[in-house]
Parts: sequence; C-alpha cells; structure tokens
Amino acid sequence: MDFSVDTATDAVLESFRDTPDPRVRELLSSLTEHLHAFVREARPSLEEWNAAIEFLTATGQACTETRQEFILLSDVLGISMLVETMNGQQQGTESTVLGPFHVTESPERALGEVISEAGEPCVVSGQVRSTAGDPVPHAAIDIWQCNADGFYDVQQPDVQPAGNGRGLFRADSDGRYWFRTVVPSHYPIPTDGPVGRLLHATNRHPYRPAHIHFIVRADGYEPLTTHAFVAGSPYVDSDAVFAVKQSLLVDFAESDDDAAAADFGVTAPFTHAQFDIALQPH
Amino acid sequence: MDFSVDTATDAVLESFRDTPDPRVRELLSSLTEHLHAFVREARPSLEEWNAAIEFLTATGQACTETRQEFILLSDVLGISMLVETMNGQQQGTESTVLGPFHVTESPERALGEVISEAGEPCVVSGQVRSTAGDPVPHAAIDIWQCNADGFYDVQQPDVQPAGNGRGLFRADSDGRYWFRTVVPSHYPIPTDGPVGRLLHATNRHPYRPAHIHFIVRADGYEPLTTHAFVAGSPYVDSDAVFAVKQSLLVDFAESDDDAAAADFGVTAPFTHAQFDIALQPH
Repeated sequence: MDFSVDTATDAVLESFRDTPDPRVRELLSSLTEHLHAFVREARPSLEEWNAAIEFLTATGQACTETRQEFILLSDVLGISMLVETMNGQQQGTESTVLGPFHVTESPERALGEVISEAGEPCVVSGQVRSTAGDPVPHAAIDIWQCNADGFYDVQQPDVQPAGNGRGLFRADSDGRYWFRTVVPSHYPIPTDGPVGRLLHATNRHPYRPAHIHFIVRADGYEPLTTHAFVAGSPYVDSDAVFAVKQSLLVDFAESDDDAAAADFGVTAPFTHAQFDIALQPH
Repeated sequence: MDFSVDTATDAVLESFRDTPDPRVRELLSSLTEHLHAFVREARPSLEEWNAAIEFLTATGQACTETRQEFILLSDVLGISMLVETMNGQQQGTESTVLGPFHVTESPERALGEVISEAGEPCVVSGQVRSTAGDPVPHAAIDIWQCNADGFYDVQQPDVQPAGNGRGLFRADSDGRYWFRTVVPSHYPIPTDGPVGRLLHATNRHPYRPAHIHFIVRADGYEPLTTHAFVAGSPYVDSDAVFAVKQSLLVDFAESDDDAAAADFGVTAPFTHAQFDIALQPH
C-alpha cells in the first residue's frame, strides 16, 4: 500500500517490529506517533521543514566540550523540567533541571572550602536527612554555580580557573555540609547560538534567577538534582527554563551569629544560606 | 504556580504569548504540546533523555557541506515523506522525498547530454504536461542520481567528478526532455553515523530501491519533487525512507526502436525509461 497521510504512522511503527529491545521500540514508536501528529496538525511547509532541519543542525554544531546547546533547547521548551519532574523523587526536596553547565567534573573539596571568591562572600550550609528525618551520613554533594558576574568557569576560561564555583563535597557523619562561596548572580543563558535566536524570535528574555546547583547522592536513596534559588532574585517569576519551585527559594540573609560564624571560619556579620535536603529512600 | 506535570505545557505555551509572527507561535506551540505529550506518555528516564540529547548532538555534528544527517533522520522516521506528501501537488505526478543528497547545485546541461557513464547505459525521456494534458514548454528539470555502484558524486569525491549523475535540464518547447545516463543502483543510506546506529538498534535494513531524483519547476505550476523508481529494483517494497509510490515505478526496458535510438543519439537495442510528468497549475 502506498505511503499516505493516513498510513504514514502505521508504516513507520511497523518498521520497528523487529527491534530487539522492547523499551527502544516503545520510545521510538511513541516519539514517531507524536511527531507525526505534530506534522498533521501544524502542516509545516517544505520551507518550514527545511528551516527546522537547519536549526537542529546548527544546534548540534554549536555544542562543544563545554557547551551543550541541545540541553539548552530542551530547557527552554520545558522538556528538561518535565522529564526531571517525572523522574525526580516524589517526596523530600523537590528536583529541578540539570542545566547545560554540568560539563566538567567538580573538584573534590573539604567541607568549609572556598569555591568562589570575587563577589559578596557567603556561607552555604545544611543537613542531608531522609524523608523520615534521620541524618544521612557522608552524602556526596556536587555543587556548581556561576560567579557574581553571572558566568560559569567554562564560559570564562581566561578569567576563572577551572573548577571555580564547583565542588564535590562529602557531608559529615551527621549529614551536615557547609562551604564558602559568593552569592551567585542571575544571568542570561547563552544567546549567541540557535537557542538565542529562538528566544529572540519569540520575544522571550534569556534570564535565569540566581541559583546554586546541587546533585546529592547517598547509598540507599534516590539521587537528587536540584537548585537552591536566591530568594528575591530578579526573574524568580519568569525563569527562561521554567525551573523555579517555591520550595527551593532560600534566603541569603545577613547573620549576626558569632558562634555560627566561628564554626564556619568567618566573622559576623556574614551572609548565610541554609539549605537542608531531604532524600527519599529507594 | 509551580511547574508540574499538569501545568508544564501551559507554562511553555504562555511563554510564547508575545511572539511577533503568529505562524512561529503556532508551530512552536504545536511542537511543544506534542513533545510534552510524548514525554508524559513514554516517561523517558534521565538516562534515556541524556541519550537522546547525545544522539541529537551527534546527528548535528555528523553534518558537513555534503552530508545532511538530520534530513536522513527525518527520512527514516517517515517525517520527510509525511511533510512532502502533505505539501506536494494533490493532482498530477505524485511527489516523494527530497533526500539528503541535494547538497550541491546540478550543472546546467543540454538535452541529450550524458550525465553518468560507468554502468549500463540508458536513455531517460519524457514530456512535461499540465494536469489538463497540455505540454508545459521549457520546464526546468533538476536531476540527481547515484552511479551503478550506489554512490552519489559527493560521497566519492576521489572517484566521481563533481556533478556526475547530476544535471539541470530545460525541456524543449513541447515540454520534452531526454538525457543519457546509467541505470542507478539500489544502495544503503549512510550507516556510519547516528542514523545508522538507529537502524541497527531497530533491526532495520538501510537500503533504498534504485531511483533517479527529479525536481521540476515551471512558471504557473506547483514545483514537483519526486523520483522515478526503477521498477523491479530490490527493496521496492521496503524502502528505508518510505518513499515509494506505485505510480512512480518506471520500466527501464530494452527498446529495439531504431528511430527513437537515432533521435537520442544511440543505437538500438538500448535501455529506455519513459517518465512523463504532470504538473498542477497554481
């Protein structure tokens, strides 16, 4: 039977009949059905289809070892956030997007180390607990953030040393962690590539509210990918990648607590963000 | 309101509210709705989402000036054929896919010129008419085909001269065209890139039945992108890109017609394919 608008989807699904891995077949079949439904609904012209091919090609070609434009595309279409929300733990601390800047390994750091220096100094601390409230000892906490100018280390290789704003910490036996850094800035996602052109064409701003990225892992618990957002940061209500959840807004507040300052190796008054983390058991 | 599985799609559609071009907004909104529906249905894991990002990145990076891996991906998912079928003329000669090898301009050729020499020689001829049956004078006919080994010129820059198997012809005042070439071979689409890995993972063969590509344009008519398929070629029933339509199967038959041979500048017996083309007026 000839390929036609009515038989197209069945023909492609049938071509997947001998796929050895049933999950691969399921994913490709579902993707095909939904992409065909998009074409039938939106009826792209040949010029529009060609523009889409060129856009996707340019997106792939904008990727380098330190830039991931396809993650950025997934981010600005809300797909990353949807995937993360469906896969993230359903209890405990809420998850949010990985983002495109987790492209290098964070250097291992001791608790209390300074990970970034130019800007308003602050201490970030918290405790990793189970959703039942028990401390989770020795959780691995992978941190990355931009500097006070809104750039990650990989975006400024001539300005920031590799690993600036990054750290892989190990919580103590009570699940407590702390490190010193600077308050991150809100920033625009990179706009000099295809995703920037997409935002421009849709009159969308490219900004993300200020945040620090976390991936927290501990044996026996679901891994958690999330952010601590700086409460009150510009763009908290219109994040370009839809990643804000109210429960993740954290006060970066001035503290006069001399005892806490002494514990963290700073002097009061100091800026302090407290971000406790609850992990869901497997 | 927080981003959630239920609010995700509305949040992204709302972000497109200020798009100046209503068609851009329509396309992006429809694409977002269908991609989100795919994610909600197929529930890709973070590892699967990451694998998809890497696949799309590699697809973009496989593209060069003479290779278009994203068109190939669109082709093997039946999307190219669906877009072409919905946009192609609805009367007259049926359309089929552009394919990934229309990457260089065809050299202008005089009617009767030889466009490819190594293999079984043949004459391809026909007449361009309107759907009402009237000759369409001086139509532009853009031709490209692989050689008898199944390769396009751009795939074998050290073997085939640029423009081998390609020609931009101008039909005569009766709409008639003819050129000399070799019978093309069936061939595998390129399998050394991401699309090849996709076919391998789904146990699909990569072959296309033998064909000659045509784009026919004439003032006052819809442009036509199509193929003349070699009737009886292997894979005519399982084209890797779903492009075969029964009406496009053409006999490449031995002819004893001395008068025709003389007209075409060959000697009988000769292999002759007759492919008449009907264009739909605007």
